[in-house]
Amino acid sequence: MQKIAIDMDGVLADVYSQFIKMHQQEFGELISIESIYGKTEGEAFVHCRKYIQADGFFRDAPLMEGCKKVLERINQEYDLYLVSAALEFPWSLIQKVDWIKQHFPFIGWQQIVLCGSKQIIAADIMIDDHFKNLDHFPGKTILFTQAHNILKDAGRHQRVNNWNEIEKILL
Amino acid sequence: MQKIAIDMDGVLADVYSQFIKMHQQEFGELISIESIYGKTEGEAFVHCRKYIQADGFFRDAPLMEGCKKVLERINQEYDLYLVSAALEFPWSLIQKVDWIKQHFPFIGWQQIVLCGSKQIIAADIMIDDHFKNLDHFPGKTILFTQAHNILKDAGRHQRVNNWNEIEKILL
Repeated sequence: MQKIAIDMDGVLADVYSQFIKMHQQEFGELISIESIYGKTEGEAFVHCRKYIQADGFFRDAPLMEGCKKVLERINQEYDLYLVSAALEFPWSLIQKVDWIKQHFPFIGWQQIVLCGSKQIIAADIMIDDHFKNLDHFPGKTILFTQAHNILKDAGRHQRVNNWNEIEKILL
Repeated sequence: MQKIAIDMDGVLADVYSQFIKMHQQEFGELISIESIYGKTEGEAFVHCRKYIQADGFFRDAPLMEGCKKVLERINQEYDLYLVSAALEFPWSLIQKVDWIKQHFPFIGWQQIVLCGSKQIIAADIMIDDHFKNLDHFPGKTILFTQAHNILKDAGRHQRVNNWNEIEKILL
């Protein structure tokens, strides 16, 4: 059974919709996704780091469309781990565990990894929206499209735009 | 630079002294380490799981003797990660981060991994006191002696009894 490491923020958890909502609450301005193509989260949302620290930012993040049923099938056919580079934000640790329990009751605690760098991860396949996590990974790499990476060439990574495309590739 | 994954509980953090202290507080009985050789933590301390859930069990754990200065040197000569199978006890996550910050200010958040299973860990060397973590690891494996493993043959793993021995092997 192949081992697969799947990122949380920006792949399973729709953190962009959280940023957009909180920016609108603070400034009354609705930022469109298209307007922030190619920008980092910090460039797109001036108070990005404040929003991340808000209580519930991670716990209340919506699911990425279509991820739940695909993840459940991946969990049956692969040795699945959810891997989040969460240690930069220690307050997020328990929120992330709660979030996984709430949305993916089929994921056991054995399958959760909260790390700082993903250079410590051993798996056959990695799905992530950040080049910094995929570039050093020796296995198959799948780049999940998000506004911050959409203008870049995926290079050796296979780009997917949504969970339907992940389903087609993996299942 | 070789990548090394070092366990926390029972290798860096002296959790046995926490168990012994809490057992004595509850029952007035001082358990000697020798009397629990070969027993799991659950067999040695009937209320083991209750103690683990006590506030501060992990945060207040003493350091294993001699570990700090050796770990600081390992951090200079290796690509060091502290890896704890902490997800079974989600309340311990933030305690463990605090504990690392308190005792090892030279360890960055990038170097911390809180996981469930260690089968996801990629490194050249692993130091751990549990066979279940070392047995599947493809690299060099160092078994740190604790009461629960002291009567077993180390097999393919190299046994060390203290941090002086780790220093001799690695530095």
